[in-house]
Amino acid sequence: MHRMIEKYSGIIRNELDSIWPELPEPKSLYEPILYTLEAGGKRMRPVLLLAACDYYNGNLQQAAKAACGVELFHNFTLLHDDIMDNAELRRGRQTVYKRNGLNTAILSGDLMMVKVYQLLAQMSPELMVAVLPKFNDMAIKVCEGQQMDAEFETRNEVSIDEYLQMITYKTAVLPAAAMQIGAVCGGASDTEAQKFYDFGIEVGIAFQIKDDWLDVFGNPEETGKVKGGDILAGKKSMPVLLTLSCLDAEAKDSFLQTLHGNAPDKVERILAIMHELKIDEITMQWADKYFKKSLASLESIAGDDAGKNFFRAFADSLMERKN
Amino acid sequence: MHRMIEKYSGIIRNELDSIWPELPEPKSLYEPILYTLEAGGKRMRPVLLLAACDYYNGNLQQAAKAACGVELFHNFTLLHDDIMDNAELRRGRQTVYKRNGLNTAILSGDLMMVKVYQLLAQMSPELMVAVLPKFNDMAIKVCEGQQMDAEFETRNEVSIDEYLQMITYKTAVLPAAAMQIGAVCGGASDTEAQKFYDFGIEVGIAFQIKDDWLDVFGNPEETGKVKGGDILAGKKSMPVLLTLSCLDAEAKDSFLQTLHGNAPDKVERILAIMHELKIDEITMQWADKYFKKSLASLESIAGDDAGKNFFRAFADSLMERKN
Repeated sequence: MHRMIEKYSGIIRNELDSIWPELPEPKSLYEPILYTLEAGGKRMRPVLLLAACDYYNGNLQQAAKAACGVELFHNFTLLHDDIMDNAELRRGRQTVYKRNGLNTAILSGDLMMVKVYQLLAQMSPELMVAVLPKFNDMAIKVCEGQQMDAEFETRNEVSIDEYLQMITYKTAVLPAAAMQIGAVCGGASDTEAQKFYDFGIEVGIAFQIKDDWLDVFGNPEETGKVKGGDILAGKKSMPVLLTLSCLDAEAKDSFLQTLHGNAPDKVERILAIMHELKIDEITMQWADKYFKKSLASLESIAGDDAGKNFFRAFADSLMERKN
Repeated sequence: MHRMIEKYSGIIRNELDSIWPELPEPKSLYEPILYTLEAGGKRMRPVLLLAACDYYNGNLQQAAKAACGVELFHNFTLLHDDIMDNAELRRGRQTVYKRNGLNTAILSGDLMMVKVYQLLAQMSPELMVAVLPKFNDMAIKVCEGQQMDAEFETRNEVSIDEYLQMITYKTAVLPAAAMQIGAVCGGASDTEAQKFYDFGIEVGIAFQIKDDWLDVFGNPEETGKVKGGDILAGKKSMPVLLTLSCLDAEAKDSFLQTLHGNAPDKVERILAIMHELKIDEITMQWADKYFKKSLASLESIAGDDAGKNFFRAFADSLMERKN
């Protein structure tokens, strides 16, 4: 897996570097974009795109345009999300919002988004026509998911189904569409590409539930996070929603009051209720359910089984992560 | 002209209404978009697009997708511009920024932008492949122009050439690209479509210079604007830049000091200098130069001369406007 990631990362780096060989004018607009891209990150989404294309022995140079499009789009969402979250830091560095101000952060983000479509327009006409609708569907869902997340914060009741839809849109559709688009670039039929999409959605949901689990039940020494950070912030993550679904009206009110309050022993009190209801195990059962689903979707894809090892290893690495 | 505008407006209204027949979820994300589109405006850009397509007897239903894309894109820029300008009102109504808050204004704008590309992707593959690169080039220039405008505010020296580039990007490329894309939708060659683009750029520059002129030298009773609003705001509009180009270093400093100061007779003092230098006439000469250029570009377009009356009338109406 490591060698393939190396190979894909090299292609992505070359393609990204070739977008702006020199800083264009107006520099104040483009510099924050290059600053954002410099920070790197794991390039997980474009790597998945190229891997799906490679599964079908597709042309990786053509797919690299879409891969960079997906990576630029991801970075565009981070740039605008950081404004909405009033975030100070991103990948250990100051956010563009704090560094360059609101107006530049909005406009640099907007420009990145247009650049995404300029990259997609550089593919062969046949590929572009096939990829564009899939990319657009994904991008719309990402915006919708972001808004749902914000809405949920001000609501008392959020159903498990609503939460799953939100994390699907906000987190899972981007890597899922990356693999779907990669498969299309490799020559897969829409039906086969859809299986890669389903795999991505399911593994993305599993990952997000595991992430919620780690925040509440993980070992802070291993995760590097504040113990119960989500609880302190009053977030309606999966363990909270599962707890609420087990409580009667009165207990629910009391639980929510604690969650939204500022008692010094807030985290301990919430954890005590969760332990009693075995929310620890129930949350992990949900994550496992989606993890198993994802493996079944992967299984259903036609073709070389050994070629799927990369994607199995990817799913495993997400589920075993400690931080 | 009026009857053609009626016809095109009807097509645009139908197409816009069909995008979201019902308000999608999450409502809080889509409602501000419909609120923005409801406000209407003149729909000048999509009308120009359909007119250029119609000049070649093209399929207006196909072109309507691109026309609505252009209108949505224009409204997207207004939505984000209102954040950057901290604007209270737009078309006499509260801005989305003030009405729905920063986060929704950013995200609704982002979604509108994606929706633009979803509309473009609904055209026939051949048209889409031809239109997309032209649309992207325009969109990137609009972002760059917006940033240049913001940059110029903090700079002391701005050359006439820089200013012309800024207003070209910020204002003129959108209607110009609308006509270019319309011509392509109608079956025009890239060379002929480029002439429509040039016409749009030149008439757009002429319009913006005339607009600058009106702000400084227009009759407030006719324009409905505050006398010398741009001067009060210290804006480096065309009359200011032309004045600066006539002054020596010392006079320049003194002029800029007055312009950026708050003297009660600031407007009168600036106007006195401008009158002495005949900036009134010089500014109008610049506007006329671009207006005449635009008519020559229109002239150079092959085909039915009577069909160009619509575009002549459009250019005339922009130049004769009193407000």
